[in-house]
Amino acid sequence: MAEEKRITPMAQDFSAWYIDVIKNADLMDYAPVRGCMIFKPAGYAIWEAIQRGLDSRFKATGHENAYFPMLIPESFFNKEKEHVEGFAPELPWVTEAAGEKLEERLALRPTSETIVGWAFQKWIQSWRDLPVLVNQWANVFRWEKRTLPFLRTSEFLWQEGHTAHADEKEAREETIRMLNVYVDFVQNEMALPVWEGQKTPSEKFAGAIDTYSIEAMMKDGKAVQAGTSHYMGTKFAQAFNIQYLDKDQTLKFVHTTSWGASTRLIGCLVMAHGDDKGLRLPPKIAPVQLVMIPVGPAKLREKVLARFDPLFQQIKAAGIRVKADAREEYSPGWKYNEYELRGVPLRLEIGPRDIDNNVVIIVRRDTGEKITASQDGLIDIINNLLTDIQQNMYNQALQFRQDHSFEATTLAELTDILDKQFGFVLGGWCGSGACEEEVKKATKATARNKPFGAPKQMPTCITCGQPSVATVWYARGY
Amino acid sequence: MAEEKRITPMAQDFSAWYIDVIKNADLMDYAPVRGCMIFKPAGYAIWEAIQRGLDSRFKATGHENAYFPMLIPESFFNKEKEHVEGFAPELPWVTEAAGEKLEERLALRPTSETIVGWAFQKWIQSWRDLPVLVNQWANVFRWEKRTLPFLRTSEFLWQEGHTAHADEKEAREETIRMLNVYVDFVQNEMALPVWEGQKTPSEKFAGAIDTYSIEAMMKDGKAVQAGTSHYMGTKFAQAFNIQYLDKDQTLKFVHTTSWGASTRLIGCLVMAHGDDKGLRLPPKIAPVQLVMIPVGPAKLREKVLARFDPLFQQIKAAGIRVKADAREEYSPGWKYNEYELRGVPLRLEIGPRDIDNNVVIIVRRDTGEKITASQDGLIDIINNLLTDIQQNMYNQALQFRQDHSFEATTLAELTDILDKQFGFVLGGWCGSGACEEEVKKATKATARNKPFGAPKQMPTCITCGQPSVATVWYARGY
Repeated sequence: MAEEKRITPMAQDFSAWYIDVIKNADLMDYAPVRGCMIFKPAGYAIWEAIQRGLDSRFKATGHENAYFPMLIPESFFNKEKEHVEGFAPELPWVTEAAGEKLEERLALRPTSETIVGWAFQKWIQSWRDLPVLVNQWANVFRWEKRTLPFLRTSEFLWQEGHTAHADEKEAREETIRMLNVYVDFVQNEMALPVWEGQKTPSEKFAGAIDTYSIEAMMKDGKAVQAGTSHYMGTKFAQAFNIQYLDKDQTLKFVHTTSWGASTRLIGCLVMAHGDDKGLRLPPKIAPVQLVMIPVGPAKLREKVLARFDPLFQQIKAAGIRVKADAREEYSPGWKYNEYELRGVPLRLEIGPRDIDNNVVIIVRRDTGEKITASQDGLIDIINNLLTDIQQNMYNQALQFRQDHSFEATTLAELTDILDKQFGFVLGGWCGSGACEEEVKKATKATARNKPFGAPKQMPTCITCGQPSVATVWYARGY
Repeated sequence: MAEEKRITPMAQDFSAWYIDVIKNADLMDYAPVRGCMIFKPAGYAIWEAIQRGLDSRFKATGHENAYFPMLIPESFFNKEKEHVEGFAPELPWVTEAAGEKLEERLALRPTSETIVGWAFQKWIQSWRDLPVLVNQWANVFRWEKRTLPFLRTSEFLWQEGHTAHADEKEAREETIRMLNVYVDFVQNEMALPVWEGQKTPSEKFAGAIDTYSIEAMMKDGKAVQAGTSHYMGTKFAQAFNIQYLDKDQTLKFVHTTSWGASTRLIGCLVMAHGDDKGLRLPPKIAPVQLVMIPVGPAKLREKVLARFDPLFQQIKAAGIRVKADAREEYSPGWKYNEYELRGVPLRLEIGPRDIDNNVVIIVRRDTGEKITASQDGLIDIINNLLTDIQQNMYNQALQFRQDHSFEATTLAELTDILDKQFGFVLGGWCGSGACEEEVKKATKATARNKPFGAPKQMPTCITCGQPSVATVWYARGY
């Protein structure tokens, strides 16, 4: 009836497993343009859930949304040296429009610090205009050589917050506040533990003074940067001349920040929670939390639907995101498989005998557990199960992270760990970029961040053995 | 303290009035790229209200959101002849990326029928896959020669629905269903009466069989197309080979539709509801429905705030979108003016004497009426006022439309009406494009649409006097 769906076992080939899961869960499709992708409804619905979770948090912390033009004049990039060096190699350019060659090339935005800086310069005159706290939901472009759906694509969707403040203290507070917003969202809604910390200079955002990130561990032990927050100092303020007249009647440069999270989070959910049966979605993010499937022989279908339909209405009215799949052209078995692939947290089956017994069968996606539940008090049962699944998925991810976290004191140890196992390795770092580079060459692992509240202080540099200035997580990325 | 804000009277110069209103309401800013604009927070918040209103209606009618790549290969446009002829003159092109010249130019999407068609061809095999009902919220590009903020810009934001159906009947039903969704939203939430109807062939979407629109009247009597819905027949299905195996085991082309509404609706709100004091927002769309301002001498401020703050919390808890402006660096008078400019439907003032009398002062933005309201039962009073303002603004717009709607039986009459007055003119049309062209040359007015349930049937063509095949609204546009 439908083509058979197969998922390569994760242990056999993680990359093949990942592609199989996202294709079978119908999250995406490839696009006719290299490195771009189509977000299919099931994938985009996850993005909408992420947007709701983040957007409400941004608004609760005083930010407003705005929208800046996608096309950025070439000259804008040249105003901040590190910024242009970081982004120029990946830019696509519009050179012609409406049949005419443009006088100046226009970049498709890779990020909007420059055009936002240009606008802030117009908007900010006095201390009364500060702080400016805006966010933008937008598409951005980075012409990547190697691409991977959701994780690294030429076009992706994201949000980018941009703020301007009167002084360094306020701007640094904002930088950490928004990092914590990401921590809160990813841990509590995406059910993923993260390490928040500061990036080393070589891993900073191009043009930032300090970059902070949250790093999540995927099931192949690799790290995904799930959100970043940058303190820019007065770099962009100086590049775009964003000054304000302070209460003391002197002109001062503003201090700016920016912070972002992207559709990469979708890939992150898949790689951190998925299993060999497909996607697993945490209930708070799942577009469909419960799927209802009628079962039993065709001749008793009417009897089943007579109870199935009001039950559906009752569950829906309780605010649970429920979907009823009573299609007759697909068998119950086909549907079980389908919604497992799609990661729906709970499946509810109801047949003629269940109706006689005033029960339903509920199956958990996270554990596979089958529960016979009374139809009385069903809403509470479902809500409790959803809460439990959310917590269980977090615990599983935390356990996995603990099982794949290591320590190393030398490069040889680090190499040995990453050769035999996979995961994050905690090590000391002397502060030298050359030492970081050496680790990268030897292991392909990079310094992910210097975690706040590192589980242990590592006193010497993993590479050179000199005293360490910071303890960092080393891991491979995508 | 702040620069004085002035609005050119509408009667003196409508275009200058419009720009003054959107600038003073802080809705937008110009961009460094010709024809593009920045949606400032106050403007973007209106777009968010529009998105909420439309998106919930799209989902209630069974549609899901998706996202298709912004870059469209040049070859895609050439597959549908009318489509490419309509859009090619306005396309911006990406010709280089990451330092290399591209083999094929990539257009920034002006609309997504082609790339959606390419995807539908992959997604649709069987009758079981139909209908496909997707919508996309995205930025689009049309390199316009003459631009006007919100109304016509090189980059704008919109939604575009794309659907595929088994047959013509279903697709035509969808086309009208979505037209009616626009009617419902614009009339009931934006408080604007519209004429829904069919476009004449010369005003059709490039590539459509039939285009339907809703047309709203602005306060200079011009028409704005506030939403469109297109029946494409099998044109795009043939261009992209979108076929399905039907129950009878034969391959058939799908019938497609598309429908869209854009940030033009923001301009539409301004031009249809604004007045010489600035913006007026209907309560259902207004990001802030009520602004609270404490008044009275500084020495009694503490007494006022002691009542002001709990009142704010009470109003907020009731689900009213309320903003408290207790800033001391701005005077109450400055604030009254500011929120009138910004179109906030209700203003609430409270001072020491009001507290003694257990009242507040409420001022309506739509009528200027000042109401002394008891603090007891205040929530009901506010909610009733918001309902009343919504209805009153609709009635005012309807009255305005009635006062500026005319009939003409000859081109001379039409010209005379449009020379002396402004508005929509109902006239007959013989079905000839040449007659439409003649009207346009003589008056700059175009056939807006053939309204469903035209107020009167006009039996002869306004231009040639031959029997009319349709009654149309003629009006000038932007």
